[in-house]
Amino acid sequence: MAELVDERVTPQAVGGVEAVIAALSAHFGSRLTTGRALREQHANTVTWLPNEAPDAVVFVESTEEVQRVVRACAAHGVPVVPYGTGTSLEGQINAPRGGISIDLSRMNRVLAVHAEDLDCVVEPGVTRKQLNEHLRDVGLFFPIDPGADASLGGMASTRASGTNAVRYGTMKDNVIALTAVLPNGEVITTARRAKKSSAGYDLTRLFVGAEGTLGVITSLTLRLAGIPEAISAGVCGFPTIRSACDAVIATIQSGIPVARIELLDEVQVKACNLYSKLDLAEQPTLFLEFHGTEASVHEQAERFGELAAEFGGSAFQWATRPEDRAKLWQARHDAYWACLPMRPGAKALATDVCVPLSRLADCVDETKHDIEEMGMIAPIVGHVGDGNFHTVTLVDMNDPQDVAKAKLFIGRMVERALAMGGTATGEHGVGQGKRKYMEAEHGRATLDAMRAIKQALDPLGIMNPDKVLP
Amino acid sequence: MAELVDERVTPQAVGGVEAVIAALSAHFGSRLTTGRALREQHANTVTWLPNEAPDAVVFVESTEEVQRVVRACAAHGVPVVPYGTGTSLEGQINAPRGGISIDLSRMNRVLAVHAEDLDCVVEPGVTRKQLNEHLRDVGLFFPIDPGADASLGGMASTRASGTNAVRYGTMKDNVIALTAVLPNGEVITTARRAKKSSAGYDLTRLFVGAEGTLGVITSLTLRLAGIPEAISAGVCGFPTIRSACDAVIATIQSGIPVARIELLDEVQVKACNLYSKLDLAEQPTLFLEFHGTEASVHEQAERFGELAAEFGGSAFQWATRPEDRAKLWQARHDAYWACLPMRPGAKALATDVCVPLSRLADCVDETKHDIEEMGMIAPIVGHVGDGNFHTVTLVDMNDPQDVAKAKLFIGRMVERALAMGGTATGEHGVGQGKRKYMEAEHGRATLDAMRAIKQALDPLGIMNPDKVLP
Repeated sequence: MAELVDERVTPQAVGGVEAVIAALSAHFGSRLTTGRALREQHANTVTWLPNEAPDAVVFVESTEEVQRVVRACAAHGVPVVPYGTGTSLEGQINAPRGGISIDLSRMNRVLAVHAEDLDCVVEPGVTRKQLNEHLRDVGLFFPIDPGADASLGGMASTRASGTNAVRYGTMKDNVIALTAVLPNGEVITTARRAKKSSAGYDLTRLFVGAEGTLGVITSLTLRLAGIPEAISAGVCGFPTIRSACDAVIATIQSGIPVARIELLDEVQVKACNLYSKLDLAEQPTLFLEFHGTEASVHEQAERFGELAAEFGGSAFQWATRPEDRAKLWQARHDAYWACLPMRPGAKALATDVCVPLSRLADCVDETKHDIEEMGMIAPIVGHVGDGNFHTVTLVDMNDPQDVAKAKLFIGRMVERALAMGGTATGEHGVGQGKRKYMEAEHGRATLDAMRAIKQALDPLGIMNPDKVLP
Repeated sequence: MAELVDERVTPQAVGGVEAVIAALSAHFGSRLTTGRALREQHANTVTWLPNEAPDAVVFVESTEEVQRVVRACAAHGVPVVPYGTGTSLEGQINAPRGGISIDLSRMNRVLAVHAEDLDCVVEPGVTRKQLNEHLRDVGLFFPIDPGADASLGGMASTRASGTNAVRYGTMKDNVIALTAVLPNGEVITTARRAKKSSAGYDLTRLFVGAEGTLGVITSLTLRLAGIPEAISAGVCGFPTIRSACDAVIATIQSGIPVARIELLDEVQVKACNLYSKLDLAEQPTLFLEFHGTEASVHEQAERFGELAAEFGGSAFQWATRPEDRAKLWQARHDAYWACLPMRPGAKALATDVCVPLSRLADCVDETKHDIEEMGMIAPIVGHVGDGNFHTVTLVDMNDPQDVAKAKLFIGRMVERALAMGGTATGEHGVGQGKRKYMEAEHGRATLDAMRAIKQALDPLGIMNPDKVLP
């Protein structure tokens, strides 16, 4: 491991890592590895943040094993970095101070499904697709859908959301309770399985979005939804981004319980046409989906059509057959991959902000203006029903000027969102990448309160250090 | 104040209170009072918990004034007890160690309504009825409805919910952000106005339900809903509590987006008939309300009717005219008052538990069995779509045996709920009354984590001491 020693790590900590590895090896055997390739796979690979590998990766299979690792790390002051599927976008799984990556992918059992209560209990390594496969026979589904087939523990940790959030909420709304190993090795369960409670501090929501900085989630009780009796989807083009955004605002305000309402700008539509073999008009476009009974789905679509027409929307193009609907959403989920061929050799940097709905058109408009002004390729795609949108900036990582320009652009995008009452990230989380914006977003006193909580639960600072809090 | 000095208060603290009162008098003048009647009004009056009055009450008018009070109290180690409307049910406003009650009722301005974003910003003393009056012209409403016309700050602090929660969620789901004065006098704002965010720890949800033990809420950004185009309501009787509960489970499972679904047992129906001049059959009865478009409301009601019939439900009796609907819900909200004449001279003790929906029928059945066995009068009424129900136990407070029996009954009810995977309180909060159940509900390690957070934010222990945490 010597080649990976970071100068920030004190000699004691280095000794600590070796002691932890020695202590854990007897128990974990080949499930603990210090091989470089696997360590590098367990650190950030999807963005421009440097790959900062842990000193070792351990594949745990139970809460007790997580406790064992955390206790060993606590005893030697060694960092612990929880790992799900590695799909986070802000460097959440990097190990800038080395330490042990806890790979939770083998904790992938669905522990219980309570169909009458519309909930289930899962281990953190269960992925959302695996869960939905498991649930299909009982007529239920887990609605949170961040695109990637992420682990549910990781989705909780980053407070993920995605296309269905406008109707079904985010992870914060769909985790009923969770079990976590605290930095001191103790196991807590944050709540009962009851649908609501007023019994004490909401530790569930404190852990959702904490990005593994307060402990390691080892099970989750999740809220489920019934598979809708009827689903209809389709697309609707608009002359401008602003008219599309205005149609979204009108839709939300009028109370149409739309299940998905996604914006693709004309650049993204072009990319998706090529990548996913669609033949959409290259204009700002909304992808929509309605859930309900046959009658209500019909009514929702009709009402949306009337509103869209008021804002110059094209006739609503239906995707009624399940395979057409699947193709449409697959294209939406592949938006990131669709961008890559637009600039061969470039890296695609996905970032997100979220603003109050009333400022969405302004924010997207100004962002597009920036993209043009700066001469970049950066398609826009967004969960616009929540005021949340992404840019996928294509960057030549070998060109320092191009990298600098992209960094400037993302910084301006965040500052713009904050100035509009928005947030630096609607769903990707803070990780390493957005720590620098936290003081501007929250102010010093609020950050100090967060730091006090971190210090109270993790006085040694071993849990996923250098993430979230600057 | 000497007559109110509690033996637990150290001489230093007593001196401290006097110093605080002296320090604040110059600024607050007649807005600070030490008169006994007003002090006693600012402590618990609605349950069997003793009235434990603060040493003084101060009527604040701004966040800065809250800071001024908290800083003075912090300087002298004197307790701070936030006060909204005094309608909490577990002694949340009592001052067992004396100190200063901060009356927030004059901070009652609606600061902003953002109709396009479906949100508003209010001071904590705004009551829910005041807010809904204010919103009427913009076609929006705030759906959380705990019955009492409570202050929104108090509702957030106790994580209130009520009849609409099955559709619109609880305070946890409807507070977007809040501003609070911390025990050290600093002001924090927990989040931006964006509909969602992944930027850091969820301090919003930490303060919602903290019952004023972590700080004083001084403003709230609340999520609003559109006033539904169509509303229909009605009642449906069932042969047994179990059949009514089964109908509720089937309704929720089938995805009917019912806005309200409330259970009254036959005892409560009888009480409401007498008190509110209804003529319902004296049997377990569901009160329902549907929100949506004309067509969807019709469809929802029709579907519910079909399900209810399967479980032996009577024909659905409509309350179509707004005045009939209002009468129905007024009767529901007056359920507490309706109980009182059933045992003249008795005190009505409302308590609540919440269990997973699948255990609701068992829990209510066993609770009713207890009531009969113990020879008590204790009508049952509940937000059964959430698995949450209340008993209103009528107790002769002058008969120690009767009091002991009621305490035993409530203790058994909580233990039963916990054994069924439920919680000691679905919406009333912990206050003083339910602290003794917190270890059974959460376990020691989880309570220790809550205590660590309390200690981190309130190291002097001045914020609403002896509440929530045992």
